Amino acid sequence: MRVGFVGLGIMGGPMAGHLVSAGMDVTVWNRSPGKAEPLAKAGAAVAGSLEDLAAACDAICLCVSRTEDVRGCVEAMAPHSKPGTLFIDHSTIAPSGAVAIATDLRLQGRRFVDAPITGGSMGALKGQLTIFCGGAEADVVEAIEVIKPYTKTAARVGPSGAGQQMKMANQIAVGGALLALCECLNYADKAGLDITQAHELIGGGAGGSWAFANYGAKILNRDWSPGFTIENQRKDFGYCREAAARIGAAIPGTDLVDRLLAGLQEQGHGEWTTAALFEAYQAR
Amino acid sequence: MRVGFVGLGIMGGPMAGHLVSAGMDVTVWNRSPGKAEPLAKAGAAVAGSLEDLAAACDAICLCVSRTEDVRGCVEAMAPHSKPGTLFIDHSTIAPSGAVAIATDLRLQGRRFVDAPITGGSMGALKGQLTIFCGGAEADVVEAIEVIKPYTKTAARVGPSGAGQQMKMANQIAVGGALLALCECLNYADKAGLDITQAHELIGGGAGGSWAFANYGAKILNRDWSPGFTIENQRKDFGYCREAAARIGAAIPGTDLVDRLLAGLQEQGHGEWTTAALFEAYQAR
Repeated sequence: MRVGFVGLGIMGGPMAGHLVSAGMDVTVWNRSPGKAEPLAKAGAAVAGSLEDLAAACDAICLCVSRTEDVRGCVEAMAPHSKPGTLFIDHSTIAPSGAVAIATDLRLQGRRFVDAPITGGSMGALKGQLTIFCGGAEADVVEAIEVIKPYTKTAARVGPSGAGQQMKMANQIAVGGALLALCECLNYADKAGLDITQAHELIGGGAGGSWAFANYGAKILNRDWSPGFTIENQRKDFGYCREAAARIGAAIPGTDLVDRLLAGLQEQGHGEWTTAALFEAYQAR
Repeated sequence: MRVGFVGLGIMGGPMAGHLVSAGMDVTVWNRSPGKAEPLAKAGAAVAGSLEDLAAACDAICLCVSRTEDVRGCVEAMAPHSKPGTLFIDHSTIAPSGAVAIATDLRLQGRRFVDAPITGGSMGALKGQLTIFCGGAEADVVEAIEVIKPYTKTAARVGPSGAGQQMKMANQIAVGGALLALCECLNYADKAGLDITQAHELIGGGAGGSWAFANYGAKILNRDWSPGFTIENQRKDFGYCREAAARIGAAIPGTDLVDRLLAGLQEQGHGEWTTAALFEAYQAR
């Protein structure tokens, strides 16, 4: 079986690398071809086009950005792919978009699993990602086997689109935890407390979180280098808000974080990491 | 040295019990005297009045509710207490109130450490509380020695009032983490996902928190028995909001949680535990 990988960015690059390291036959493609070079050196085939990649592979992973990017890649590949080809999409896109793409592919005799990831760039480097899979049971079982080299936890969470819905829920939790961290440390700072001590004492108790443990040092050092950027976080929140409106779920906390991050983005800081939300508090 | 303990509620009762178990000479007092009985059986002396307790003790711990309760108890005790008596207040009250009480006591030749606690009723039962101490260095050192039997972590965080400021920052983090948890699981529920699976997958990743680990089961079982009540949480948030306005710290996340909890309280659910914030989302 030959596995294709489309989208070799900060996440997709290391993920494709894990497939190669696991001894799989891998063909890669990236919009800017330079990113394929390290993978070619490691033993991956590099396709000249999406069409060529599609013709060569039995399963095709994607890790691109927006709904329209996934749609564009899939539309280019599907007519050239083998019947029954399994598309596995790791991008975070609109749940409704994932359902529509899955339906289109089914009509063409191809298969689709939405499989958005969480665990960040460190998780991708270590091959320790959590992956939320939506699709038909047999397809998800097959997908989980393919993506095993970069998986910490992968689970079927429902039919097509459910993987993206779980990712939306995940981003809601991530955003809220970030809000709690930044609002707390800004308060401590304005109250004249030592915020290093506040971070340690509060993070070790009932206010603690993954965000406290992992973003604390960034805030204490005012280090806003990415990491996951404000721009990408707001892209995800856009899908969250659209999906929440469709299903009638209130997300006032997410709306609040999004507004605060929007302020930073409007000031030209879209490339800062999300922990820079602290700066939005400091400026108020 | 004889230690007094005033306020034998869900937190103070077990805390006083740990002092007795540690072999200290303890005198207790509670507004409703029945709560002193188990401590009397364990070996504590029971004072007939605050005045009697004050006259008998060298250090006096308080664990009552509001700023005015602490002020009332301290004003009743101070004139009857020995010069140099160390008052240690575990209640969560306004930082400005703690500063004022400390100043009043200093003028009377008595000492005061604000020492609010976190760790919940389980922490009190186990003697594993985190305690934020504000006051003069020598007084805090002495206070930490007295309260050792129920301490996991105790630290001086600054002068008088700083302990309460740290508690405010802590409640901001706790409230935000609760918001993230409830907003996430409500979204998952409305999206048709299995919320038990959502809780497990998301809680194990970048969205995870102490709140996910400790309140998750309550939400999955819709068990709103206290626990820390909405009424008490809103009492603390009231002090937060007042203190935040004084120091010019924006706390929009805390304001949001407080508004959502206010809705539940107005419906007569003030005695529910705070994880019932989930219900505020379900109803929207």
